[in-house]
Amino acid sequence: MDAPSERTRVKRMNKRAAYDAETVHGILDAMPICNVGYVFDGAPYVTPTLQWREGDHVYWHGSSASRMLEACTEAEVCLTVSIIDGFVMARSAYNHSCNYRSVMVMGTAHKVTDAAEKEMRLKNFTEGLWPGRWDMLRKMTAQELKATTVLKLSLAEASAKVRTGAPGDDEADYALPIWAGVIPVRMEVLKPVDDPRLITGLTPPAHITDFKIG
Amino acid sequence: MDAPSERTRVKRMNKRAAYDAETVHGILDAMPICNVGYVFDGAPYVTPTLQWREGDHVYWHGSSASRMLEACTEAEVCLTVSIIDGFVMARSAYNHSCNYRSVMVMGTAHKVTDAAEKEMRLKNFTEGLWPGRWDMLRKMTAQELKATTVLKLSLAEASAKVRTGAPGDDEADYALPIWAGVIPVRMEVLKPVDDPRLITGLTPPAHITDFKIG
Repeated sequence: MDAPSERTRVKRMNKRAAYDAETVHGILDAMPICNVGYVFDGAPYVTPTLQWREGDHVYWHGSSASRMLEACTEAEVCLTVSIIDGFVMARSAYNHSCNYRSVMVMGTAHKVTDAAEKEMRLKNFTEGLWPGRWDMLRKMTAQELKATTVLKLSLAEASAKVRTGAPGDDEADYALPIWAGVIPVRMEVLKPVDDPRLITGLTPPAHITDFKIG
Repeated sequence: MDAPSERTRVKRMNKRAAYDAETVHGILDAMPICNVGYVFDGAPYVTPTLQWREGDHVYWHGSSASRMLEACTEAEVCLTVSIIDGFVMARSAYNHSCNYRSVMVMGTAHKVTDAAEKEMRLKNFTEGLWPGRWDMLRKMTAQELKATTVLKLSLAEASAKVRTGAPGDDEADYALPIWAGVIPVRMEVLKPVDDPRLITGLTPPAHITDFKIG
């Protein structure tokens, strides 16, 4: 499958590139943490936030007072998700690498303006990470909804880049007595910690104890 | 301590902001994974890579053929490091948050042009993550050094933002029978995996088995 546009074409190590929806969606769905790039007063900014995917769009949200969200509205953005799977330890410094799965989405971000749609998107975000939580929560107020901005970005210009497996050393280097291999890493989810003000006797529901990421 | 420049001043939730070297250095030193933002043909790009700090500069590197490194050279960039420490689960959707430690560095990136300095920087990067590894490796060749670009960025315009602790719920919501608290997350380092072509009998050195991140 070819790149959807010239600027999304992976230039370096293009054997690691993929543009199919299955690969792109799989990475976006595995990792809500993303970094959004935008231009403000001519300079680039990168802000970490959480994204979620619905169909062929990614969404992110925040306070309506956020400079990032304001600067991204109706503007060119780049949303990048990267999952680091391991450090690739080769026999030469030069051949060290990382194993990773990353997605870069470029395009113009738009505000979700309809209040009912905005609330539905926020519900889908919450339910995607913690199924069943939305209906357990204190209901969102009209004022809270107004104070929240949701942005959407089409996946039309998305590219993925993936590296897996062992180091790729120079052929002659394989004979050297140097340890080589991969140090795998992953996002670990630890035991939930009760709020100190939690009502006595409440225990975390399944969407908390079963939470996984990455 | 005040922000070093207007554009680095944290605007939203500024009680979470810090500009002191101890906080900024601590976060940069804890997490090599970063995202570099730059402008190319007027559009923002965000590329994940690894950074390391020496004194009051951050460095990153890659292939001299990299479009990212070329676009960043003598250009305005934004380098962001973020460590996600937990998902903050409140009693309302609106008060959900993340615990995190993040640093944003803005400024003009410069190429390390002197070959000896470039090699020293790459050595310091390697040794910072895996002490003792550099001297165990097959020596870097002049051609490899030439094919590698190292960029540096001053920390003069750096800001940190940190959130820790329990949810901040609306006072009335604390009485609700809804589980609230924090789901902590961290980068987990797993057991190293030998290269399938490893020389028989070689075992991973301490810098591999002791590797920690985050």
